[in-house]
Amino acid sequence: MASQTKLKILNDPIYGFITLPSQRIFDLIEHPYFQRLRRISQMGLSYLVYPGAHHTRFHHALGCLHLMQKAVRILKYKGVKISEEEEEALQIAILLHDIGHGPFSHAMEHSIVEGVDHECISLLFMEELNNNFNQSLTLAISMFKGEYERPFMNQLISSQMDMDRLDYLRRDSFYTGAAEGNINSERLITMLNVVNDELVVEEKGIYSVEKFLIARRLMYWQVYLHKTSLVAEQLLIRVLRRAKELIDDGKKVECSSALNYFLNNKVSRESFNKEVLAEFARLDDYDVVCAMKEWVKCDDFVLRNLCSMIINRDLLKVKIKKKKPSPQKIVKHINLLQQKHGLSEHEAGYFVFSGAITNLAYKKEQNNINILHKNGKINDVIKVSDQLNLKALSKTVVKYYICYPKSED
Amino acid sequence: MASQTKLKILNDPIYGFITLPSQRIFDLIEHPYFQRLRRISQMGLSYLVYPGAHHTRFHHALGCLHLMQKAVRILKYKGVKISEEEEEALQIAILLHDIGHGPFSHAMEHSIVEGVDHECISLLFMEELNNNFNQSLTLAISMFKGEYERPFMNQLISSQMDMDRLDYLRRDSFYTGAAEGNINSERLITMLNVVNDELVVEEKGIYSVEKFLIARRLMYWQVYLHKTSLVAEQLLIRVLRRAKELIDDGKKVECSSALNYFLNNKVSRESFNKEVLAEFARLDDYDVVCAMKEWVKCDDFVLRNLCSMIINRDLLKVKIKKKKPSPQKIVKHINLLQQKHGLSEHEAGYFVFSGAITNLAYKKEQNNINILHKNGKINDVIKVSDQLNLKALSKTVVKYYICYPKSED
Amino acid sequence: MASQTKLKILNDPIYGFITLPSQRIFDLIEHPYFQRLRRISQMGLSYLVYPGAHHTRFHHALGCLHLMQKAVRILKYKGVKISEEEEEALQIAILLHDIGHGPFSHAMEHSIVEGVDHECISLLFMEELNNNFNQSLTLAISMFKGEYERPFMNQLISSQMDMDRLDYLRRDSFYTGAAEGNINSERLITMLNVVNDELVVEEKGIYSVEKFLIARRLMYWQVYLHKTSLVAEQLLIRVLRRAKELIDDGKKVECSSALNYFLNNKVSRESFNKEVLAEFARLDDYDVVCAMKEWVKCDDFVLRNLCSMIINRDLLKVKIKKKKPSPQKIVKHINLLQQKHGLSEHEAGYFVFSGAITNLAYKKEQNNINILHKNGKINDVIKVSDQLNLKALSKTVVKYYICYPKSED
Amino acid sequence: MASQTKLKILNDPIYGFITLPSQRIFDLIEHPYFQRLRRISQMGLSYLVYPGAHHTRFHHALGCLHLMQKAVRILKYKGVKISEEEEEALQIAILLHDIGHGPFSHAMEHSIVEGVDHECISLLFMEELNNNFNQSLTLAISMFKGEYERPFMNQLISSQMDMDRLDYLRRDSFYTGAAEGNINSERLITMLNVVNDELVVEEKGIYSVEKFLIARRLMYWQVYLHKTSLVAEQLLIRVLRRAKELIDDGKKVECSSALNYFLNNKVSRESFNKEVLAEFARLDDYDVVCAMKEWVKCDDFVLRNLCSMIINRDLLKVKIKKKKPSPQKIVKHINLLQQKHGLSEHEAGYFVFSGAITNLAYKKEQNNINILHKNGKINDVIKVSDQLNLKALSKTVVKYYICYPKSED
Repeated sequence: MASQTKLKILNDPIYGFITLPSQRIFDLIEHPYFQRLRRISQMGLSYLVYPGAHHTRFHHALGCLHLMQKAVRILKYKGVKISEEEEEALQIAILLHDIGHGPFSHAMEHSIVEGVDHECISLLFMEELNNNFNQSLTLAISMFKGEYERPFMNQLISSQMDMDRLDYLRRDSFYTGAAEGNINSERLITMLNVVNDELVVEEKGIYSVEKFLIARRLMYWQVYLHKTSLVAEQLLIRVLRRAKELIDDGKKVECSSALNYFLNNKVSRESFNKEVLAEFARLDDYDVVCAMKEWVKCDDFVLRNLCSMIINRDLLKVKIKKKKPSPQKIVKHINLLQQKHGLSEHEAGYFVFSGAITNLAYKKEQNNINILHKNGKINDVIKVSDQLNLKALSKTVVKYYICYPKSED
Repeated sequence: MASQTKLKILNDPIYGFITLPSQRIFDLIEHPYFQRLRRISQMGLSYLVYPGAHHTRFHHALGCLHLMQKAVRILKYKGVKISEEEEEALQIAILLHDIGHGPFSHAMEHSIVEGVDHECISLLFMEELNNNFNQSLTLAISMFKGEYERPFMNQLISSQMDMDRLDYLRRDSFYTGAAEGNINSERLITMLNVVNDELVVEEKGIYSVEKFLIARRLMYWQVYLHKTSLVAEQLLIRVLRRAKELIDDGKKVECSSALNYFLNNKVSRESFNKEVLAEFARLDDYDVVCAMKEWVKCDDFVLRNLCSMIINRDLLKVKIKKKKPSPQKIVKHINLLQQKHGLSEHEAGYFVFSGAITNLAYKKEQNNINILHKNGKINDVIKVSDQLNLKALSKTVVKYYICYPKSED
Repeated sequence: MASQTKLKILNDPIYGFITLPSQRIFDLIEHPYFQRLRRISQMGLSYLVYPGAHHTRFHHALGCLHLMQKAVRILKYKGVKISEEEEEALQIAILLHDIGHGPFSHAMEHSIVEGVDHECISLLFMEELNNNFNQSLTLAISMFKGEYERPFMNQLISSQMDMDRLDYLRRDSFYTGAAEGNINSERLITMLNVVNDELVVEEKGIYSVEKFLIARRLMYWQVYLHKTSLVAEQLLIRVLRRAKELIDDGKKVECSSALNYFLNNKVSRESFNKEVLAEFARLDDYDVVCAMKEWVKCDDFVLRNLCSMIINRDLLKVKIKKKKPSPQKIVKHINLLQQKHGLSEHEAGYFVFSGAITNLAYKKEQNNINILHKNGKINDVIKVSDQLNLKALSKTVVKYYICYPKSED
Repeated sequence: MASQTKLKILNDPIYGFITLPSQRIFDLIEHPYFQRLRRISQMGLSYLVYPGAHHTRFHHALGCLHLMQKAVRILKYKGVKISEEEEEALQIAILLHDIGHGPFSHAMEHSIVEGVDHECISLLFMEELNNNFNQSLTLAISMFKGEYERPFMNQLISSQMDMDRLDYLRRDSFYTGAAEGNINSERLITMLNVVNDELVVEEKGIYSVEKFLIARRLMYWQVYLHKTSLVAEQLLIRVLRRAKELIDDGKKVECSSALNYFLNNKVSRESFNKEVLAEFARLDDYDVVCAMKEWVKCDDFVLRNLCSMIINRDLLKVKIKKKKPSPQKIVKHINLLQQKHGLSEHEAGYFVFSGAITNLAYKKEQNNINILHKNGKINDVIKVSDQLNLKALSKTVVKYYICYPKSED
C-alpha cells in the first residue's frame, strides 16, 4: 500500500516524463548519497558563460535512467533477449554511474583529491549501497565494471555512444541553449541493435551517428572548452591549491567542515576508505562556492583575488593559440605582476599560467561505434562514412591557452 | 574599441538569444550586485519537486530585458512614440526590478529580514547603482516607482501582464517541465497596444489572455504552491528562526559571515541603510544551504532535524484540506512528538504546524488587463470574456495545510 | 523474411517516431483506402488563414495510433488488464476511426453527400476491410460501435478526452502555429486510469484537464471557426451546390470522373452501397480543388466567381455578431448585387448569406470526463474544479455571421 | 484606413510570427501569381516517405521574408548601412525568388517543360509583376540577377548560406521530422557580417557553419535523395512523358485544361512568352495529381500502371549502389516484364531504368562561405576548419540506382 503513494513519475523538461520502474530504483534515488547529486552542478562553472547551465548530476542520472528504459524497450522489440534481472541491473548501473562525482570534479581532481578519479569513487559508493540494499546491486556492479558476460550491456553504460553521452550532450545543449550541440537521443536509440551480444547501429543510422560525433566535437570546442569556462576552472584549481597551501603553512582558512576535511587531509586511492567516503558524501558545490565567498574578504592577497575573480565574474584574460606560448611571455607577465603588487614569483604565478586543451571526437579501437550493414557485415563507423572524413575526427586536436591579469594587457 | 570585444549576445534556451542593447546595460549586468543574482535561485526549493528548476534570478532578469525589447519594438511598429531615453529606462527598470531578492526570499521575509520586502530592497539597490552610474538611472527609477507620466511604461514593468510575469511563467514552466503552465510570451506581446498612454490588449488577443490567466492559476496550484515545495519552505523558515533563537540564547551557530550578520542583527525597513545593504549584497543561496549542511551535525535536536529534512529530502508529511485543521489535531501531534523525543511544546511546535495558502488568479481593480475592441472601446478582460467565467478567477481561493512528522502518522 | 524489409518506424514531427506494432496494422495502412487519406487535408481550407495547416487525415490517424499505444502501455503499467487481442483491436479501431472522411467533409455533408456523415462511412469502410482481412477487424468494429463489454475501450476511441482529440488538437495547434491551443497529449495520457472498466483521470490531472478544455475551446474560436475559414467553407458549399444545380439544369460542368459521380447522383444513407463506396474511395481534395480551378474559367457567373474567390483567396466580407443579422440587411446586399451584375435573386443569394456558429467546450452527460479522487470517489470534472467555472463551458455559445461581397461595403 | 484592417501578422509554426513589413509586400502576396504557390508543395512527392511533408512554396517564401528581415536587422545593428529602398528590395527579391516553381518542378523540367528552369520563370514572373506594380520591383530584380553594386545583397538572396537555404533546410527538417537536418537559422544569421560589401560569417560562427554544411548533406542523403522519393519522382517523370507520347500519337488523355496545354505544346526558353506564362500560372500540384488519379482508370497499360504506383504508393523496387548497374541487368528485367505483360521493349522500359544521384555539400569557388577572423583576415570556410575535413565536402559523391517491378525480384 505505502508504495502507491510514493512518487513514481517525474517531470523532465527534455523527455516530458521520467518513469521510475521499480521500488528499488525509487529507494536508491531517495538515499542521501543520491540526493546529494542535487547539489552538484553537471557543468561546473559553465554557467558563467551560459546562464542557463545550472542543471545537476541528479537530473542527468535520471535522464540516463530514462534513456536506458527506452533502449531496453527498443532492443526487446527487435528480438534481443534481456531478462528482468538484467533489465533492472542496467537501470541501476546507469543511475549510479556518476554517483562518485564531487563538486567541480575536474578542478578537485587537480587539487584536493588528486589521483582519485570519479569512476573509482562511484564504485566505492555502489559497493557501499550494495551493502545497504541486501547485495541486490551485484549484477549492476558487474556490468558497470565491464565484467558481465554480455558486452552490449556494458556498452549501453559506457562506450562512445552510451546512454550517458546520449543524455548529457542533449541535456547540456538544452540548458545552455547551445542549440548546435543538440542531438536526438531518442532517434539514435531506435537505431541500436545487438549482434553476438555486441552493440551495433543499423546502417540507416549512419548519418545520425556522424551528426552525433560532429555535435559532440562542437560541444567540446564551443561549450566544455569555452575559454571563459576554462579560465574559471583553472582559477578554481588555484583557489583550492592556495587554500591548501595556506593551511599547510599553518594559516587559518575558514570553510565548512566537509571542505575543511579535504583541505587538511591528503587523500589517495589507497587511503580512500569508508570514513573518507562518508566525508566525501558531505561535500558539494555549496561548500566550495560558500568558501570562495568567504575568502573574498580574507587576508591573503592571492586567495582573496582568485576568489573575487570567480565570484564577481571578473576573470583573467585568456587567449587560445595553436602554438605553445613562449616561456618568456609568461615570465614577462609574472614580473609585471610582481612589481605591481609586490608579490613573490610563486604568488604571481597563481595569476599567470598556460596550458593545453585537447579534443578527440572519436577514439579508434576503444569502445568504437559499429555499423551493421544490411548484408550483415559490421564495420567501425569511421570506415563506413562515404564522404565526410571521419578519420579526421579520430585525431586529437591540441590548442594552447595563456592566462594573465586583464589590466596588464 | 574595447567595447567591441565585450559580450553582446547571450544564449538563452527559451528565446534563443538575448541581445544586450547598450554599453550601460552591459555594465549594469557586470556589476557585482547584479552578478550576485547568478547565485539566487528563481524558484527556491521547488527543485525538490521539479529537478530541473535550478534557474536563477540572473537569467530571469535577462529574459525580462529581452521581452521588453520585443515589446518596445512592437509598440513602435504600431506607431506608439517611445524616445530613446524612455526605451533605455524601460530596459534598465525591468532588468533591475528584482535585484532586491535575497536567497529564498519568501522564507527570509518570514524569518531573518521580517518586514522588509524585496521591492523595497530593489529600490535601495537601484539608488545605490544610480550613484555609481552618474545618475543615469533616474528615469528608470521613476518608471519603476510608477511616478513617470506615461502609465503604460510602468505597466510594462509592473502590472498583471507585465514583462516580469511574461518571462517568469514561461521560464518556470520551461525549467520545471510543467508544460501546462507554458505561455506564449512573444505572441501576447504582439497583441499589446497603447491608448492614451495606457497599455491595452487588442481584441483578437482575448483568448490568449484567458489562457495566460488560466496558465498562471495552474502554475500556482501545481508548481508554486505544490505541497512539497510548501513544506520545504515552511521548514526553511523554521530553520532560520531556530538558528536566530539559538543565537539569541547565546548558543554558537556556525555559518558564513554574511548569514551570521542577519542572524545576529535585527533589521527593519528603517534600519536598512547602506551598510546593511552591503551585507545583504553578500548573501545568497550558498550561505543558506551551506549553513543547513553544517547544522545537520549540530547539537540542537530541532535545528539538526529540520536541516536534515531539507538536505536529505526527507520532509514532513503534509496534507492539503479545504477546511482549517482543528487545534486538537495539532495538539495531538505535538504531544506525540514531545513524548517520543522528550521535547518541550515549543520545540515540538517546529515540526507540527498548519497554515493557509491562497491563490488569486486575477486582481480586479488593480493593474487590470484591458481589452481594446475594434470599435475603440476599452474594457476589463473579465467583463469581456464570452463564456469562460473569468469573474470566478478574481475570487481568492484559500486552502489549508497541516504538517507533521511522517513516523507519527 | 519479407516483413523485415518493410517500413516499421515512421517519422513524426510531433512525437518523434511512430512505431507500427504489427504486420496487420502495416497492411491496413498500405491499403488504398487508407493511402487515400494522404490526399485529404485534416483542416480543409484553414490553410487560407494558417499557411502551415496542410497536414492530412493520414498523418492524424497515425498520430492517434501512437497515442493509443502510449495509453495502453500506461494503463498496463498501472495494472489494468488488456489482452493482446484487445490491444490490437484498440489500435485498429483508432487507426480507422476517421477513414470515412471525404474531402472537405463538412462542406460535402452540406452539399453533395447530404445526410451521410463520416462516422457512417467509416463503418462501411471498416466492414469492407474486415472482409478483405479475414474478419480480423471484428473486435475493433465492435469497440468502434461502442458495443464491446468494456466501456473504457470505446472511451479511448470516442469520448471527450479520447485519443482522437488528444491527437488532433495537438496536431492542429502544431501545424497552424496557434500555440495557445497546444495540449500536452502525452501528459494527459499518463494521468488516465481505469476503474470498473470506465476511463478516469487521476485527481492530480485536474488542472491539466481544465487546460485541455480551455485549449479546445480556444482552438474552436481562434482556428476552427475563424471567420476566414468559415467564409471559405461556406463558399465551397455553394460551389458544390451550384455545380450540382447547373448539372441538374443540363449544363455541362467539367470535372474529374469521381467528383462527376457525386454531382450527378444523389446519395443517401440507404443508397450508400458497395458501389457508391468504391466511387467515394476515389474522391479526395484534388478532385474538388482541381474542379474549382477549372471552373474559374467557366461560363456561369455564379460558379466562376465563387471558385475564383477561393482559388485566389479573394473572399467575401464576413462579420461576426452576437445578434442575428436582420433580414433587411441581407435583402439590401442581395438587391445591390442584383443591380450591379444583373443577377436573379437566387443567383445573388450565392454571395450574400448569414448563419450561426456554435461552440460547446464540454458536453455534460455524454462521454463525460471523470476524475478519480485519492479517496476513491469519482466525479464529473465540472463538479470538481475549485475555482474556474467549468459549468460555464458546458453552455453552448452561439454567434452569427453575415457574408457579402467586399466591393459593396 | 483600409490598410489597417488588412492582415499584417501571419502565424508560423517555426518562427512564431511573420510580420509583413509594408503594404507593397502585402499586395504582392495577395496577387494570384503568389497565391498560386499555396498549391505547390515544397517537397513534391516526399510525403510518401515523410507524412508530414505537405508544406508549400508559399510558406517557404514567407519564411525567407522573415529571415531576411532578421538578417537586415542584425546587419544594421552591427553598423552596416542599408537604405530603406535596399531593405524593401531585399524583402521583395527573397519573397519572389522561387515564384517560378511549377508543380513537382524537377519532374516537370525533365518532361513537359524541358530546358526551362524555374529561375528563368521566376524572372519572367517578377518582370510581369514589375509592370503591374509601377516598376517598383526594379531594384529587387537587379539584386536577384546579381547586377546590383553591393554583392552582399545578392549573397543574402542567393549563395551557399542565403536566406533561401536557411529557411528551407529548417522548414523541411521541421515538417519531415528528420530532426538531424535541423539547423538554427536564427543563430547563423546573428553571426553574419559585411566587409567591403561582401557577406562574411564571424569567426565564432565557424562550428555553426560546419554543422550547417553537415546538416545539409545529411538532408540530401536522408530526405531529398531518399530512395522512395527518388523512385516516385522518376515514375512521375515517366507519367508525364508517357502522357505526352500518347497525345503525340493522337490518343485522348483526359486532364485539366492547364495541364493539357503543356502536354500539347512544346515550350522552350525562347517560346516562353507572356501567353505561356499565363498558362503556366494556372498549373499546380492539383492538375498533376488529379490527372494521375484519372489515368489510373485509363486504357494504356503503361500510363495506368505508372499512375497507380504513385497514387496507391505501391512503387517500383529501388536499389542504391556505389557502382553503375550493368546493362545486362536492365535488359534482363525488361525482358521479364515484356514476357509477363506482352509489352514492347519501349513500353517495358518505363518500368525498368537506372540513373545516378549526386550530392555536393559545398561548392568551392562559387558563392563560397567566408569566415571573418578576429584579426580581420577573411578565408573560405573549408580552409579554416581545424579538424573536420571540410575539403571532403567539396567533392561530389555519386551513387547509382536501379528500379524495376517488385514482383520480378
